[in-house]
Amino acid sequence: VPAGKEGYYIGIDLGGTWTKVGLSDSSGCLLARHEVLTEGYRGPGYIVGEISKKLLALVEEKEISGSSLLGVGVGSPGPLDIDSGTILKTPNLGWEDVPLRDILSGAVGLQVALDNDANAAALGEWWKGAGAGSRSLVCFTLGTGVGGGIVIDGEIWHGSGGVAGELGHMTIEVNGRRCNCGNSGCLEAYASATAISERAREGLKGCDSGLSRAVGGDLDKITSEIVYRQAVEGDPFCRRVIADTAVYLAVGIANMLNILNPEVVVIGGGVTQAGRLLFDPLLEEVGKRAFPSALRGTSIVPAGLGNDAGMVGAVGLIKKEVEGELGP
Amino acid sequence: VPAGKEGYYIGIDLGGTWTKVGLSDSSGCLLARHEVLTEGYRGPGYIVGEISKKLLALVEEKEISGSSLLGVGVGSPGPLDIDSGTILKTPNLGWEDVPLRDILSGAVGLQVALDNDANAAALGEWWKGAGAGSRSLVCFTLGTGVGGGIVIDGEIWHGSGGVAGELGHMTIEVNGRRCNCGNSGCLEAYASATAISERAREGLKGCDSGLSRAVGGDLDKITSEIVYRQAVEGDPFCRRVIADTAVYLAVGIANMLNILNPEVVVIGGGVTQAGRLLFDPLLEEVGKRAFPSALRGTSIVPAGLGNDAGMVGAVGLIKKEVEGELGP
Repeated sequence: VPAGKEGYYIGIDLGGTWTKVGLSDSSGCLLARHEVLTEGYRGPGYIVGEISKKLLALVEEKEISGSSLLGVGVGSPGPLDIDSGTILKTPNLGWEDVPLRDILSGAVGLQVALDNDANAAALGEWWKGAGAGSRSLVCFTLGTGVGGGIVIDGEIWHGSGGVAGELGHMTIEVNGRRCNCGNSGCLEAYASATAISERAREGLKGCDSGLSRAVGGDLDKITSEIVYRQAVEGDPFCRRVIADTAVYLAVGIANMLNILNPEVVVIGGGVTQAGRLLFDPLLEEVGKRAFPSALRGTSIVPAGLGNDAGMVGAVGLIKKEVEGELGP
Repeated sequence: VPAGKEGYYIGIDLGGTWTKVGLSDSSGCLLARHEVLTEGYRGPGYIVGEISKKLLALVEEKEISGSSLLGVGVGSPGPLDIDSGTILKTPNLGWEDVPLRDILSGAVGLQVALDNDANAAALGEWWKGAGAGSRSLVCFTLGTGVGGGIVIDGEIWHGSGGVAGELGHMTIEVNGRRCNCGNSGCLEAYASATAISERAREGLKGCDSGLSRAVGGDLDKITSEIVYRQAVEGDPFCRRVIADTAVYLAVGIANMLNILNPEVVVIGGGVTQAGRLLFDPLLEEVGKRAFPSALRGTSIVPAGLGNDAGMVGAVGLIKKEVEGELGP
């Protein structure tokens, strides 16, 4: 297919709970989107079937011809084997060694490109979001875990083993909190939504706070969202938890400034809902930890595409394969 | 000058104490080298004069014509402004805002290329050393400080502000040891030669060890070399200090595997004299902290060029400018 050919792409953000399916024109502009519960326990065949239905629904809805669909991009939880398009193991979905690229390609009869969700989000932000036009971009996606992606000269940097960009798994405390990955002291073990609620739960024990009242004394009900809400309402304990989160994230960001000094650092994902309460102390702490000239060379910005970053990036993945380049 | 023209280059490793001046053929093979005390307190004019003398001595010694010298490369302590070839501030030399590239170029009448010493060493190891032929390389230089350099597709990665590769200044402990850079918890504050002797000194207080006897009870005389020697001789306290050093370094290396997943990680500099006593526990700890597929994709190797890495890399800097590429 020659570059610039009139056509459409499907971008899929495969998540632990929801799967988003978007229809995009060839410039990366989303025309319509649908969501469907992933229900990973039913196995990959189920969601592949649901994706096929949504794809057909989008084509009908927008009255485009099926033959103008040029391909499908997928951002998926990892780790993946990029070369073979296989999901190696995803605790979130309960899958192991699923050759999703080929299964999906067989089901929909289209070329499929697969990468991990955080890499797709980084590519989306580089192509159409907060890092558009930059030469180098690092993207942190703060959700249940802490995902990361690195884009250099318009290419996702995978490294030699396909693992690059696992920013949530940089150690920030040598003998620190236990992480799901088996390591200790990972950024994810401090700054993910899960870690925020855990830290709040631990800190709260025996301590009076609006937070314990907000969950009716049942500490298991604490979520990162409740912590933010209480912080916004002025609860000192929750403000402390958010301020600590800002410091941990700042360490991760400052490390990336001193290591890679990218043109743009994008911060996205649910945790960023905390807004200025998180961003103000975060930027202050980065300022203390990064070299001044690294700081001058790098913009630290919230994500520009919100929840669409994964879908837009997935469109970028497949457009790049089909047309050879993304264009502006 | 067309690529492959017969000619010679000068590579300079400007250090806090010693400055090394090497003569290289155009393939990056060092033919002869001289050392001279930098004596930074005398100002840049002094060492530029000494370099000029050594350059003439090398030309005479090897009986080459002055006109076959194609240029001079310099690796210097940083931080630098690469574009203007200026040393911004080097506590080691006591200099500030020295336009070394132009001063040296004026003195020797040759084109001069300047980069920081750790970047030059990384380029040297990528071109002719332990990372020859790799697509991506990360180099740690462990000396008085902890230097770092990143080479991607044969290019030193400078980042947007010129600071990239400052691997010694990634935080590995959020509220950790004070670093010379002003931050706390930097890798350099744990794993540099200076930090090793400081940690030994602090740990030793009130504690019996072969180390205190080795310095005649004068703890100020402790150096990292003495700590290694005592460790090699079996002193349990010094073995503990080296084992801790291995863990700190492993955190820095594992972070680079999870972040960049380069093809090769090179470990060089004086601290590596500790040999297997350092490397064995280091590799074990990296194995615990890095993702398995990052580990499979990356070789972790000692430097191949030893003390010549800086000079060879400096030759690479200038050859690249003059000929446009390095070649194998």
